[in-house]
Parts: sequence; structure tokens; C-alpha cells
Amino acid sequence: MYDSIRAVQWDGGMLCLLDQRELPQQEVYRNLSDVNNVAQAIRDMVVRGAPAIGITAAYGVVIAARHRYAQDAAGWKRALEADMAVLSNARLTAVNLFWALQRMREAIAVIDTANEPTAALLAAARRIHEDDVSANRRMGELGAQLVDSPCAVITHCNTGSLATGGYGTALGVIRSAYSKNKITQVYADETRPWLQGARLTAWELVKDGIPVTLLADSAAAHLMKQGQVKWVIVGSDRIAANGDVANKIGTYNLAIAAKYHGVKFMVVAPTSTVDMSVDSGSDIPIETRSTEEVLAVQHQRIAAPGADAWNPAFDITPADLIDAIVTEKGVVAAPTADKIAAMMENDL
Amino acid sequence: MYDSIRAVQWDGGMLCLLDQRELPQQEVYRNLSDVNNVAQAIRDMVVRGAPAIGITAAYGVVIAARHRYAQDAAGWKRALEADMAVLSNARLTAVNLFWALQRMREAIAVIDTANEPTAALLAAARRIHEDDVSANRRMGELGAQLVDSPCAVITHCNTGSLATGGYGTALGVIRSAYSKNKITQVYADETRPWLQGARLTAWELVKDGIPVTLLADSAAAHLMKQGQVKWVIVGSDRIAANGDVANKIGTYNLAIAAKYHGVKFMVVAPTSTVDMSVDSGSDIPIETRSTEEVLAVQHQRIAAPGADAWNPAFDITPADLIDAIVTEKGVVAAPTADKIAAMMENDL
Repeated sequence: MYDSIRAVQWDGGMLCLLDQRELPQQEVYRNLSDVNNVAQAIRDMVVRGAPAIGITAAYGVVIAARHRYAQDAAGWKRALEADMAVLSNARLTAVNLFWALQRMREAIAVIDTANEPTAALLAAARRIHEDDVSANRRMGELGAQLVDSPCAVITHCNTGSLATGGYGTALGVIRSAYSKNKITQVYADETRPWLQGARLTAWELVKDGIPVTLLADSAAAHLMKQGQVKWVIVGSDRIAANGDVANKIGTYNLAIAAKYHGVKFMVVAPTSTVDMSVDSGSDIPIETRSTEEVLAVQHQRIAAPGADAWNPAFDITPADLIDAIVTEKGVVAAPTADKIAAMMENDL
Repeated sequence: MYDSIRAVQWDGGMLCLLDQRELPQQEVYRNLSDVNNVAQAIRDMVVRGAPAIGITAAYGVVIAARHRYAQDAAGWKRALEADMAVLSNARLTAVNLFWALQRMREAIAVIDTANEPTAALLAAARRIHEDDVSANRRMGELGAQLVDSPCAVITHCNTGSLATGGYGTALGVIRSAYSKNKITQVYADETRPWLQGARLTAWELVKDGIPVTLLADSAAAHLMKQGQVKWVIVGSDRIAANGDVANKIGTYNLAIAAKYHGVKFMVVAPTSTVDMSVDSGSDIPIETRSTEEVLAVQHQRIAAPGADAWNPAFDITPADLIDAIVTEKGVVAAPTADKIAAMMENDL
């Protein structure tokens, strides 16, 4: 229920992406059969959202390996490394990209070099995709349990089917809690500059029959002051070993406002988003994107000529502003390094 | 220096407004000689900014009185009341509108009913206008004194020449401090939904040769975290007797983030913005504007069809988040009801 959208699909031997730059005006699907085009699609945000980027990269490896094997059946593994590097450089902050490429490397390692690798790698990519949807379903259940009485919630950016293999992380929790009548109203930050909230979250929720109210990002504190909102529920692009969370720019702002108002703050992300190799949020690289995203809205210039802009795509929310991190392995309340480590070792 | 713009002018017996809806793409001036059109211009935000609204309404009274006298030399004062009501209803939150109408009422009261009132009322309106510019100059000096070492500052919305009689409130302080080399960088929130920062503040600062860097509103906390910003400097639409401040939506959010980071928070507004008749911010009416301002950007629809929106135009920042309120009568540090009362009684 409330789950009808798939933005990343493998179809007819090609990767098929719903072009998120065109939403909500048009539903355009792009068929990709060249790995450089897959990397470009990630860079240009045809596909975005940390888990969806990882899944896309995994399918990208399938495409690349098929092509390299056709070119040079003996040397395809070595040649493929260049494609892995191109995919790896597509974006900077979401660790799911590197995680998925690592999983594909493991799948490559066990293939006999003499064999055509497409079937085996496609199976590995499909497993990443299916595991992500399962993780989202599980997180949806776990996160919804934390919402103990019907209330309004705020979410930021897009963390739904469009951002994942399907169903969503934070939006999966919202779908699940809504289906259990635990949510009275979903408020979605419009999420400047790329407007993921206004364009994508609203599109997804309307499509699945969940009413949604948009607001300017800066109105969130004023909304919290009204008293109806009990939870802020967001996703993540990378979680450090100590529980600090990188997520879409504005998340940190929202966490500070939530703490100030006694509103609880939930981060929902699969363990593929947790990067145990970085100690804290200050070690997570933050992508800075083009100033044009701030100076213009959907190719329409808004800012005065001569103005400069600063456009960090993500920010870091420190663990002490977070009430719960929900992964498919469980709920970490008031996250610390020890609790994150214990959760990661929990072998389901 | 750094002061070349006048958005409200009396010229050739007409009110001339720089249409702020058209900036920065076009500089269009609207000549108004009918009071209903003046009220409409305030409502539609041809002119905006609390002090500029007050000044515009004052000139609107001149236009209305001239017309009423021409229609009925004996009954003009009574007939004028209807026009005052129309002006008074144009917008809700900025108290400068009601303050200016009250000052004009006092000017009307001392005119002999038999006399053609245009000259006397024009003199009163011009005085309101000139007093506002003088107040801005004075606040510019006082506020700049609070910035004790060169630093970056953040401002929100537009509080400059466009929002006032000229020079500006918060932007007046920024102009003044910049001219004294006390500001290393001016960051301007783009200020969704109406984009006053991107469209107006950037336009004004570029025009006056002050470099400006725009950012998405929700990036402000992440910026503060970098450590260069020492002051947030904003204006106000109404200040309650206890020092609570109504200002453009997002100001409250910014004040919470500033407090969290130890960044100081300055509110700059003339005493015409102080409303001693409201005890606290919770008594200040907050205008809710059309959802279209959130669902679209400059008439281009951005949000998914079917989405609703919430669009409060202002929020309330409680006095305890404010380090200084600067008026033309002086600086109130850590504002309280007693200190605000003492400042208002300070007869310059």
C-alpha cells in the first residue's frame, strides 16, 4: 500500500531511469546502455538519493562489464577498473555509491575471468536492489513504531521510492506510519535549491494518495512552534561511526530547530549508508554544487546579476541532535559510536 | 556612500513606486494617483518592507485627501476615513502602516476643514519619509558600532533602500559597517518564498558596489558552523513591548541557529516599528499569503499538482534569542519590557 513508484529499473538489458530533473512536469524515462552515460546521469541528478545512486552504479557495472567482455574477453576485469573509477567519481558525499561498487567488486572477484560476466553481475546488482527495498520495508516498520501517538511530521528532501530501490527510507517510515493512522499531516520542506520536496516528495505522496503540505524550508521552526509536529523524519547520505549524519543541506538547521522545540529527530537509512571508516561527521566530504542551482530556479534566473552564491549540497547533523537512527538492523536511540558499532555487528 | 536607490518617491504630484515584483529583471516605476491603487500596490507587494509600506500609505493619504477635497470641499475629512480604512487593510503584520496612518490622522486633525489639504499633508508625508531616512542613518551608525572586529554577517529578506525611505535598517547597518571595513563578507539568505534576498538585497548591494553571496535559507546553520559569521542582522515588521520581534518568515529559524552557534543576533528597526500596545509576540497578527507563492516561483509552477502548501509571511523571534535591538533612539541589549519602555521614552 502507498507504494507504486520505481525510479530505477533493469529492463530489456538496459538500465531505465525516471529522469528526476523533469519531475513533476513530465515523466521521462531514460534508457542507458553505456557506463559513461550512467555516471553522467548520477552527476546530473537524473537519479539522486543515496540508495538509488548505489543501485544505479551497480547496474552501471553490469553494463560496463558486458561491454568490456565483448571488447576483450581476456582483459575485461582490468579494463573494467576504469569504469568503476568513473562511476566512483560521479558524486562525493553519499557513501552508498562506494558501498555498492565494493559489493560489485566482490561479485567480480568470484567470476572466472573466462566467463561472460553479465548474468552473474546482474544477479548481484538485482540483489543490491532487492535488499534495499527489503531494508526500506523493515525500516518502515521499525520507524513507525517510534511514532507513538497520531501527530504531524516534517520531512526534508526526497527519501522515497525515487531516492531508493523503492518505498523509501524516511518516506518509507512515513508511508508505514500513515498506513497505521499514526500521522495526521505530512509537512514537506520544499528543499531549496533543487526543490526535491516540492517536485519529488510531493509528486510521490500525491501519487500514492498521501496528502502533503509544502512549506518554505525556513518556515519549519515557526511550524514546530505551533505544537502539532512531534517528529522530524529524514534520510541520510552517509552516517559516520559516531552517529553524525550527512544529509541534504538544511537537515542540520532542522535538527537544531527540533531540539529547541523538543520535537524528536529520526534519521532513517540502510546500513549501506553507514561508513564505519569515518570517525565523525567532520571527516565526511561535502559536495559543493554549481552556484546556478541557487541563482536560478529550473533554468529561470532569479538572482540579481553580479551576485555570487554558496551552494553546499549537504550538511552534517551531530549525533547529539538525533533521537533515533533507524536501519534495517534496528533502532539506535541517542546514537553513540558504541551503539552504532553494536548495531552494525548485529547479524540479522 | 553605498546609497543610490530610492524606491518610494513623490514626483509631479504623484506617488512613484519602483515595482519590486519586477526586480531584478526590470526597473519599472509605477505612477499612482488613486488611493485604491496605492492600497493594491501595498497588498500585491509592488512596495514592501515595513517602513516603505508606512511611507507609501502616508503618500496615499495625500492622494486620497486631494481627491476627496476636490469632490466635496466641506465633507472631505469624513470621506477620507473610508480611504484610510482601505489603506489600513492592505496588510496585516507591519505596524508601520498603522503608525504612519496615525501620524497622518494627527496632521489631518490640525488642518482647517475649509482648506485644501494637499500641501499640509504632503509636508507631513515628506516628514515621515525624511525622518525614516534619518533614523536609518542613525541606526547604521549605532549598529555598526556593535560589530567590533571584521567578520562575515548574514542577513535575511530585504531591509535596504527598497524596504524603507532609503538606506535601510539592517542593510543600513551593513552599509555602514562595510564602509568602515568591519564586514568581510555579506551573506544574504535568498528568502523563500518571495526571494527578497536573491532578487532585491542582491540587486541593491550589487548596485551599490557591496559584494554579496547568496545562499539557500536552510544553509545558514551550516554556514554558521564554519565560524566566520559573527552577526545575523535583520529588520522587523513589528516589535512587541517585551522585545519579541515579528519579521519575515525564517527569521526565527535563523535566531535559533545563531543562538546554537554563539552567533550574535541584531534586529534593526525604527521606533515606528515598535508597538507598545502589544505585550508580546503572540499578540502580533501573522499574515498568511497565497499558497501560490510556495507552489510556484515567479509564476513558474514548481510543485507537484495536488500538493497543498502553508505560507505564513512572518514569524516571531522571542526576545531571549536577540542580542540587540537597534532603533534610532539607541541600542537595547538583551531586550526586556523595561528596557524597551525606557528606550521609547528616550526623547532625542
